[in-house]
Formats: sequence, structure tokens, C-alpha cells
Amino acid sequence: MSAPPRETVDTAPVDAALAGFFADGTRHLVGAEHTQLWAALRDASAGGKRLRPMLFHSVYLALGGRQTDVAARVGASLELLHTALVVHDDVIDGDTVRRGRPNVVGTFAADARERGHDAERATHYGQSAAILAGDLALAGAVRGIALCGAPPDTVERMLDLLDRALHLSAAGELTDVRLSLDGEADIPAVISMEHQKTAVYSFELPLQLAAVLGGADAEHESALTRFARLLGIGYQLRDDLDGMFGEESATGKSTVSDLREGKCTPLIAFARTTPAWAHIHPYLVSGVIDDADAARVRTLLEECGARAYVEGLAADLDREAREAVAHLPEARLLDEWARTVSRGARAA
Amino acid sequence: MSAPPRETVDTAPVDAALAGFFADGTRHLVGAEHTQLWAALRDASAGGKRLRPMLFHSVYLALGGRQTDVAARVGASLELLHTALVVHDDVIDGDTVRRGRPNVVGTFAADARERGHDAERATHYGQSAAILAGDLALAGAVRGIALCGAPPDTVERMLDLLDRALHLSAAGELTDVRLSLDGEADIPAVISMEHQKTAVYSFELPLQLAAVLGGADAEHESALTRFARLLGIGYQLRDDLDGMFGEESATGKSTVSDLREGKCTPLIAFARTTPAWAHIHPYLVSGVIDDADAARVRTLLEECGARAYVEGLAADLDREAREAVAHLPEARLLDEWARTVSRGARAA
Repeated sequence: MSAPPRETVDTAPVDAALAGFFADGTRHLVGAEHTQLWAALRDASAGGKRLRPMLFHSVYLALGGRQTDVAARVGASLELLHTALVVHDDVIDGDTVRRGRPNVVGTFAADARERGHDAERATHYGQSAAILAGDLALAGAVRGIALCGAPPDTVERMLDLLDRALHLSAAGELTDVRLSLDGEADIPAVISMEHQKTAVYSFELPLQLAAVLGGADAEHESALTRFARLLGIGYQLRDDLDGMFGEESATGKSTVSDLREGKCTPLIAFARTTPAWAHIHPYLVSGVIDDADAARVRTLLEECGARAYVEGLAADLDREAREAVAHLPEARLLDEWARTVSRGARAA
Repeated sequence: MSAPPRETVDTAPVDAALAGFFADGTRHLVGAEHTQLWAALRDASAGGKRLRPMLFHSVYLALGGRQTDVAARVGASLELLHTALVVHDDVIDGDTVRRGRPNVVGTFAADARERGHDAERATHYGQSAAILAGDLALAGAVRGIALCGAPPDTVERMLDLLDRALHLSAAGELTDVRLSLDGEADIPAVISMEHQKTAVYSFELPLQLAAVLGGADAEHESALTRFARLLGIGYQLRDDLDGMFGEESATGKSTVSDLREGKCTPLIAFARTTPAWAHIHPYLVSGVIDDADAARVRTLLEECGARAYVEGLAADLDREAREAVAHLPEARLLDEWARTVSRGARAA
């Protein structure tokens, strides 16, 4: 286990389970449009690095779990849940592109434009398709856990954990929309939102499912959950840092878009408490930010201490995450996960 | 079984199972906004006549089914699925009101307006909330079937039927959006869309679940599915007729809104094939239709034979539906359901 865990877990079983899910669904397809919807959802589930299934699977193995088929199905469900939430998030955020390609919204909107419809109608068609595609992925995620082949009591506990994660991600997403509307959120509110929206389903849920399926006791599960929470929040903080200060070539994401969207991040929340805010705020409310403006905001965020504050917080969380599981037999694996995650949030 | 089935099945067990679902979910609530989202979803699931659970439950009882608790959970899942689809449909249709009260979109949009946001931002907040609320209902529907307490093989078959219904309703909804955009659909295309969008999950699924849970053989299940399909399409045709010619006081729905929305119904598809279309079309493309315009369109739809055609089709489907199950032991119950459904589509 000296190599990073990314290389120690094979993604092939999860990919095969996902391929099985999409192949199975073709039984129900009626007509060209429905077939296109299913293909667009399959595309939306492809190309990721399978962070959530691998996190789950590697810890499940470390706990002594050996039911490969069951684990593959649970892993596929985690990826489908991620896909469903991303597809619906794109509708909510008005995004039409993901990983440099048209997403579900963009694919169907382009189709409507080709048929001669204006941008507004085309976007409506695209967003409708994405709501429906996300529904299919979400139902597939729940069904996948239900039929994973684990004993009934285990399945029930896993479904309950999935339910909790879905609840919290909905709560976090709704708060995110409100904070973007209303502005003014303090650092704890923003961190709490990011924890709910992403960290719970991306980190806590995979480790909780590994614990339940792997037969860990309550104390063990609790330590893993604490590790996941701290790691997940740290991941989000790094994601925010990458979104502002990262190399676009490495992260694959514009370092201007968070600013343009008026995204409420801990960087912004920190800056709001400093005198620099009077200089930063005018750029954010202008609605039009060019590269020079973005560079100026970045400098201001560095000068006021926001960057150092968030970097320090992320480092503290990583350390606390490792401490929370230092006593566990799988501490070394988790330590490697912490390193992997902290190396490249956006890349995951 | 001489009384109409509406009166023979008690809705209390389903209502209690739904109340249990919402009470259970409160464990996961974090913060005022999340609590408001859960309450709005609960409201969205209330006030209906429980058509789908009752259809399921009455046939399950007629087939000799006696597992009251299991049936109540399955019935609640059917109602949650309906709620999820309605809540997401309202986002897609841009509706803010249902049954004369603000729906999830309307509730959250009103909240944002009260905080001083303009209509566009308020609607975005409302629609975001509704996407998330629908997701919670949909996941709850799948989980409810998964944990209904039936044997594993039965649960797997039921989840597969639910999956099929969700697929077809997505296909029908997407086609509906496209037909509203592109216009020009012939009668079979419109009927097929309505079958997929509503009839499958509202009629076929309840009877298929009753058949599977009630232990009916494949031939029996097939006859029930055929009955449900014909009945469901007839129901939609009557719903379209009510939407154009119904008494608003009885149906609770405006007889102008289908015209204003440019809804693609079999009435319109029929009229398009007649010389009357040259007189009807200008009203539909104007985008502004007052009561006098609507009255004129109604007269034209009657004169060109569209109303008589659709009424005749609905009557034929009802007859064929009954014939499909005349040989079954529960024929009388199904006959009563056919009468109940044909009496008042909108009222159901």
C-alpha cells in the first residue's frame, strides 16, 4: 500500500457495472429522442476519475470486504448519484458545458437551435432534458443500492445513508443558490453550505457505505465519517483556491468563472471582513469581469490575507482528518487518500 | 363490490405511510430553508385523491393480496412518484400554481420576492428548490418500493417496473416539450406521447405492481396492463376534452390555459387535418387568447369534428379496456374503475 491509492484500486469493475446499467436501460427506450437522452446521460457519467467509487472500494477492501460484485454495484451507484447531482446542478447553474464538452443541457439545446429555435426556447428544451436525465440517474443510484446483493438489514442502512446524503446535498445546493442571490454570508455559513452540498455525498457517504458493507463497528464508522467530513471540506476549500488561483491548464477550469458567477466562496467571505472589500466588491457587482479585472481581484485576495487564510484552513483540516483515523488499521491508506485529494481537487 | 371502488378502498393506510415518510425525513433536516423545502414537498403530496395508490390497492385486494403494510408502502411510493413527476413537470412547464395554491416553485419564488429580488431571480430560486424537492420525492419512491417488505425477487421485479415507468414518463415529457416547440404532430404521435408521459406511471404501473405483489400469472398481468394502457389513454383524452370544453367550476382548471400554452393535444392534431385549421391556427400563434377567442376556437373544434372524434376515441378505448379484462375474476371492480375514471378525469 505504498503507492497512492488511486493506482491500487482498479476502476474496471465499477466501469463494467455502469456499462451494465446503461445496457440494461436500453430495454426501455422508445424512439430517437429517448435514445438520445439515455446516450447523453451515459456521456455525462463518463470521463470522470471515479473518485467516489474508488474511495469507497479501497476502504471496503482495507476493512476486509471481499464481495467484489456487490462493491462494484455500490460503486456504480455512487457514480450515478454524482452524475444525477451534477446534471441537475448544471440546470440550476445555467451551465451548458462540462469538461470542455456540451453537457446534457448543451447537447439538447444545440439540437433545438439546429431546428431553428431561439436561444431561450433551445435552453428550455435542454434544461428539460437534463432534469429528466438526472431523474433517471438518481433513480438508478437508489435502485443500484437496493439491488446490490447485500443482506436486507445492510441494504436498509445503506439506503438510509444515501437518503441522508441526498437530503444534505439538496439543502446545500439550495443554500448555495440563496447565498448567490443574497450575497452576504460569513465563513462558517459558506463552509457549512459546501460541506452539505458536496462533502457529504462525495466523501462521507462512500466511507460510510464502506464501513457498513465492510462490517466496521459504530466507533470505527464514526471515525471514518469524521475523517471524510474534514477531508471533504478541505477538498472544497482547495477547489475554491484552484478556481481562483489555479493553473487553468492543470485544473481544466477557468479562473474567472467563479468570479463571473458571483460564487460565494470562503475566499470572498473572508475578504468581506477586511478593508480590501471596498476594492474587491465593485468588480463583483459589475457583472462583467475581464482577465485584467480577475488578476486585480486575485492580488487583492492575496494582499488581504484571504488566500493564506483559506490555505491554512485547508491544511489544518487535512491534519485533523489524518489525526481522526491515525489509530485505525487502515490509517496508511487513508493518509494516502488525504495526500491524493489535497494534491489536486479539480483534477479529481 | 357493487359500490364504486373509490368508496371501497380506505386511503388511511397510504396517508399514514406518507405521513411516516415525511416524519422520518425530518431526522435529516438542517436549517430553516431545508425544513421549508421538506414542508413544501409534503404539501405538494397532499390534497390529491390518491388515484394511483387506490387503483393499485383495490386490485391487489381483489387478487387476494392481504399484506396491508406492504401495500400501504407501495401505495405511498406511487404517490411520491406522482409528486416527484408533478413537481418537476411544474418546473418544465413554468407553472407556479397547482390546485389554486402556490406550488413548490411559487412558494420559494414568493420568498425571494419578499427578500427584494426581481421576478427572474425569484423564479430561478423557486425552480431550483423544486428540482431538489422532486429529487427527494423520487428517491423516496424508489426506496419505498425497495423497503416495502416483499420478497427480494418481487422487489426486484417491482423496481424494474418502476424503472420502466420512469423511463417512459421521461420520454413522454421530453416529447411533449419538443412538440410544444415544433408544433406539427399527428394524432398517433400525440397519443403516444400522452401514453408515455402519464398513462404508464398512473395506470399501468399501479396495476402491474398489484399483479406482481398479488401473485397474478403472466397472462393475467398482461391483461391488466392492456386494460391500464387503454384506460390511461382514454383518461388523458378526457383530460384534454375537459381542458377545452369542461366546466371550470367542476374541473378546477381554466379552459383557456391549454390554448395559451400552445399545448399539443389530439383535438389540435385532428383539427390540423381539416379545413378549419386555417381559422384556428391564427389564434394559437397569436400568443394572446382572451375568453372570446377561446370560445371561437371551441366552436371551430366542434364544427370541424375534432371534439366528436376525440370523444368517440375515448369511448372506444373505454370499451376496449373493459373487453380486455372481461374474463378476469376482478372484471367487475375494473369495470367500476373504468366508470369512475371516465366520469371525471380532471377530478381524479
